[in-house]
Amino acid sequence: MNEIQEAFPKGKFLGVPQELYDPIEYTLSQGGKRLRPLLVLLSCEMFGGNPDEAMPPAVGVEIFHNFTLLHDDIMDAAPLRRGFPTVYKKWDTNVAILSGDTMFVMAYEYVCRVTSEKLPDVLATFNDTARKVCEGQQYDMEFETKPVVTLEDYYMMIRLKTAVLIACCVKVGAIMASADPVDAEHIYKFGENLGMAFQLQDDLLDAFGETSKFGKEIGGDIVTNKKTFLHLKAFELAGGDTLDELNRLIHGNEVDSDEKVSRIQEIYRSLKIDTHTREIIEEYLKEAIFYLDQVRIKESRKRSLRKLSKEIIHRES
Amino acid sequence: MNEIQEAFPKGKFLGVPQELYDPIEYTLSQGGKRLRPLLVLLSCEMFGGNPDEAMPPAVGVEIFHNFTLLHDDIMDAAPLRRGFPTVYKKWDTNVAILSGDTMFVMAYEYVCRVTSEKLPDVLATFNDTARKVCEGQQYDMEFETKPVVTLEDYYMMIRLKTAVLIACCVKVGAIMASADPVDAEHIYKFGENLGMAFQLQDDLLDAFGETSKFGKEIGGDIVTNKKTFLHLKAFELAGGDTLDELNRLIHGNEVDSDEKVSRIQEIYRSLKIDTHTREIIEEYLKEAIFYLDQVRIKESRKRSLRKLSKEIIHRES
Repeated sequence: MNEIQEAFPKGKFLGVPQELYDPIEYTLSQGGKRLRPLLVLLSCEMFGGNPDEAMPPAVGVEIFHNFTLLHDDIMDAAPLRRGFPTVYKKWDTNVAILSGDTMFVMAYEYVCRVTSEKLPDVLATFNDTARKVCEGQQYDMEFETKPVVTLEDYYMMIRLKTAVLIACCVKVGAIMASADPVDAEHIYKFGENLGMAFQLQDDLLDAFGETSKFGKEIGGDIVTNKKTFLHLKAFELAGGDTLDELNRLIHGNEVDSDEKVSRIQEIYRSLKIDTHTREIIEEYLKEAIFYLDQVRIKESRKRSLRKLSKEIIHRES
Repeated sequence: MNEIQEAFPKGKFLGVPQELYDPIEYTLSQGGKRLRPLLVLLSCEMFGGNPDEAMPPAVGVEIFHNFTLLHDDIMDAAPLRRGFPTVYKKWDTNVAILSGDTMFVMAYEYVCRVTSEKLPDVLATFNDTARKVCEGQQYDMEFETKPVVTLEDYYMMIRLKTAVLIACCVKVGAIMASADPVDAEHIYKFGENLGMAFQLQDDLLDAFGETSKFGKEIGGDIVTNKKTFLHLKAFELAGGDTLDELNRLIHGNEVDSDEKVSRIQEIYRSLKIDTHTREIIEEYLKEAIFYLDQVRIKESRKRSLRKLSKEIIHRES
């Protein structure tokens, strides 16, 4: 949708002091998939609402998402985001903290631009989501150093960090269309499961995607020993020599990054981790579609969300 | 008011993961003056509202205030706050960033706990304030390295960073009491001017207070060359040898911190900076009272805010 891109034009004047707003304009104009605002608008449309009215909260969730990336990049010491230097690298940590805080306020400003009847519901959903995203990021950081992380732990973490925001988007769309609360809850569950599938697809692409399509180096998660689904599943399934090699590659320093990536990719393939991941993704998609099916509106209206769901789990970027 | 202190008890369970919420409990249970929530409640009471209803947004602004302190302490590399190690020192920067973000969400959660009729007004006031506080902090940071900062610049900065939050508190109290919008605007201006006086009194105490009462080392601003009202006024008034000495003390490294503080205090006294500061504080208080006088309610109802205003500018801690 062009309207979404147009909401974040390059060079847009956001306010003074310039030193505060420059990093915000830089972040917001870089693009990205704009998946979250798209989900708000499509959900609103599906429920027969006016997408123009849903545009401000749609922009709000996108600003919120970008705020979390900005602060996450400080915490993860990430040098690049969408191919550009991260804010804390290009400016400094203080600028990244404060510009992020300001984006958080801006997110609320946009989210609040709804009619007063819808405001309480929209805010309850948004507040709950924002809190959970923070909790998810905390677990994500803790898992880096935690010796034992189970698949259950991992699911809980990505549910909080990623899935609930996707769920929030479609629910806010439903609220903006004055959908029945039961339907709004079903579309929330749809979004939550879709969000799980989305994150698992992201893990898969990080290990097996194509750099030219994915937009970043393949194997980043492998190099940093990130405890993704693939990593955890591999440890669950590996035994004997394979487990020994996996441990050596992960805890040792014998090989360089490229070698580490290609050897762990090989182990993943030998254990059919890619297939397992795709199976779990399909399961989450099925669960998402189950909830979409519960929504009591004409089938034809559900077409765009169905289509987008499939695109999300088959995406290569 | 005991109710305010009781809202932040030591050891209160705030949620999981514990590693995220421990620093929040640590921060919120440390106390402080609780001036901001008190102002919300007193203003609400003054306008004939029910302070119990104003308690959630009162707690919200206090959490917001503490969130800004938590992030400011990272940016200012401050080791102590209220006599305790700051969160980023006791834990680390990442914890301080994320716990702060979570407090920001919690602040919104409390601020949103008002009736749906009052929600839009309360949020409009709070959003506007939060944005300005961020802008004020940015100016504050920039002034550290900016070669020329005028008194006008300084007033603008403290207005954004400190005064608008005080203004927000009394306005939210007014909204919670369904005050007339014109009165709400007058009480906002009262708060804004009181906030200016409050910050200038803080500057004065930092240079001339008593450690035992103020709760922190006197002269902190002097040691770090912070461009407070006193600093800027001294440069405005100093000439000849005094100006030379001031420049040597500020830009040189000839003397230790204690010596620097006592010699600059002496210069301040010789230039009557303390008297000038008190005059400006009195002017802002007069302006604040002017706006309180405009509020169209019984004089007897205004007594507590009048009393608190005087206490604020005569406080020693």
